[in-house]
Amino acid sequence: MRNLKKISVIGMGLLGASVTLSAKRALARSRIVGYSHRDSTRQKARQYEVADEIADSLEAAVEGADVVILATPIQTFEDYFKQITPYLKDGCIVTDVGSTKTLPHKWAAEHLPRGVYVGSHPIAGSEKRGVEYARDDLLVNARCILSKVRGTSAAAIEVLDGFWSKLGCNTEVMSPANHDRIFGMISHLPHMTAAALVNSVSQQNIKFAGRGFIDTTRVASGPSNVWTDILMTNSETCTEAIEKLVGQLQTLQAAIAAGDAQKVNKILAQASQKRAKLIQHKIDQKELF
Amino acid sequence: MRNLKKISVIGMGLLGASVTLSAKRALARSRIVGYSHRDSTRQKARQYEVADEIADSLEAAVEGADVVILATPIQTFEDYFKQITPYLKDGCIVTDVGSTKTLPHKWAAEHLPRGVYVGSHPIAGSEKRGVEYARDDLLVNARCILSKVRGTSAAAIEVLDGFWSKLGCNTEVMSPANHDRIFGMISHLPHMTAAALVNSVSQQNIKFAGRGFIDTTRVASGPSNVWTDILMTNSETCTEAIEKLVGQLQTLQAAIAAGDAQKVNKILAQASQKRAKLIQHKIDQKELF
Repeated sequence: MRNLKKISVIGMGLLGASVTLSAKRALARSRIVGYSHRDSTRQKARQYEVADEIADSLEAAVEGADVVILATPIQTFEDYFKQITPYLKDGCIVTDVGSTKTLPHKWAAEHLPRGVYVGSHPIAGSEKRGVEYARDDLLVNARCILSKVRGTSAAAIEVLDGFWSKLGCNTEVMSPANHDRIFGMISHLPHMTAAALVNSVSQQNIKFAGRGFIDTTRVASGPSNVWTDILMTNSETCTEAIEKLVGQLQTLQAAIAAGDAQKVNKILAQASQKRAKLIQHKIDQKELF
Repeated sequence: MRNLKKISVIGMGLLGASVTLSAKRALARSRIVGYSHRDSTRQKARQYEVADEIADSLEAAVEGADVVILATPIQTFEDYFKQITPYLKDGCIVTDVGSTKTLPHKWAAEHLPRGVYVGSHPIAGSEKRGVEYARDDLLVNARCILSKVRGTSAAAIEVLDGFWSKLGCNTEVMSPANHDRIFGMISHLPHMTAAALVNSVSQQNIKFAGRGFIDTTRVASGPSNVWTDILMTNSETCTEAIEKLVGQLQTLQAAIAAGDAQKVNKILAQASQKRAKLIQHKIDQKELF
């Protein structure tokens, strides 16, 4: 892996500060720099020593960096790309930790030097928020999807593959469109579903909820601003995903209304068997024990 | 609590056999009798000694019993009510362990002596199935809803309240209609949703599922025949529940499609806050720690 002298992370939330902490631990010879546009967050980040240096300006954070990592809301990326471009040194790689990848690639193509942007999506997080909950092991054994398009520098992908691997991630490369379709279905749709399910139940009835309801809706407790950012930047897949789910629900509903027990059983058995295969696959992959 | 000399459980699945085992443990002075219409199940029930006696016929099981508990599929209750009526001794109480209560009450009114039926719904179970997985502590700290209508014997409710309490349950009495509306929303709807969610995702994409998807769909792994029985005997509430969920999903979908981030955030924040209140309530009630 190329020697990365300076690695800068913009955004000191739970994930951004966990990236700097993990990089401090894993890359002793690199200078790890953090930045937040908020003065109070910069102070906290210094207090918790989450990076070797907390820069006082975006310019100071970015200048001379070998890698710049955006860990801010996805919807701020376009502005950040515009702002950082003048300060990027030759050969600097730009990436991010956002949960959707199509729009970041689009904005990078419009505003960043050609080829320098690679998308990263380390699949890690917590129900907690803020720099004070950052951990240097949050990324250990996490998957990290790297996204590339035609024109993305192969060298840049190699560098980032090495970077995330050193932090403990298992990496995989795919196109941003493919990433967003997959995660729209297996991550964004469950979130939307859990939220809709909670909102479907009255205050009076929800008190009777048992373990099943609580598990089914767990992800709905995630931070609403982070999730709004994700859904709004993957809107096409998300609306299609809801369409598919609604179709499945209405097929089941029609079978119940028609008294067609055989069809209802077939639908439920299909889901049960499909999930059993998924769990077995995850156990085989040592992702579940 | 009235002295119950003979308590008979019809159906030796996981729940039925757990009821006999729990009663053996908690009610040493009662004779606990089990019955299954399947010879192989009766043999296994004897082998595992889940009851003091495994009767060879329905008649032998029911005759002289102070309490008869159906632990068979809900859709078999009407037939069982017809079959057992001639053998019930005076004062015998009939109940069940089914997850829906409206139809059992309707069938009881049509076929059983007046007032002797009380609905029971002990909220306990397992992803495992069969008499060999029965446990004598499955009902400890479980909630048990008792359902009654106008005409249900108050004495019968008192006896069953005592019975389930001795087995370790926390009891609560409500009407069957109320029971089915509540559980339709907080239990049957999550199950239908989890199944529909699994069935919405392609085999290719499901492999990328992470912890969120796995938790959101956990209940879909439940036995399809048991759940078909539940949904088919609560069809009206279930179809209405899907209607409500689809409405919520479509509201969210429209907000995403319109680019209305403020509305999306409001929907997600409402769900997140509502769930936080639920979790706090469960912690206060010592149902979650």
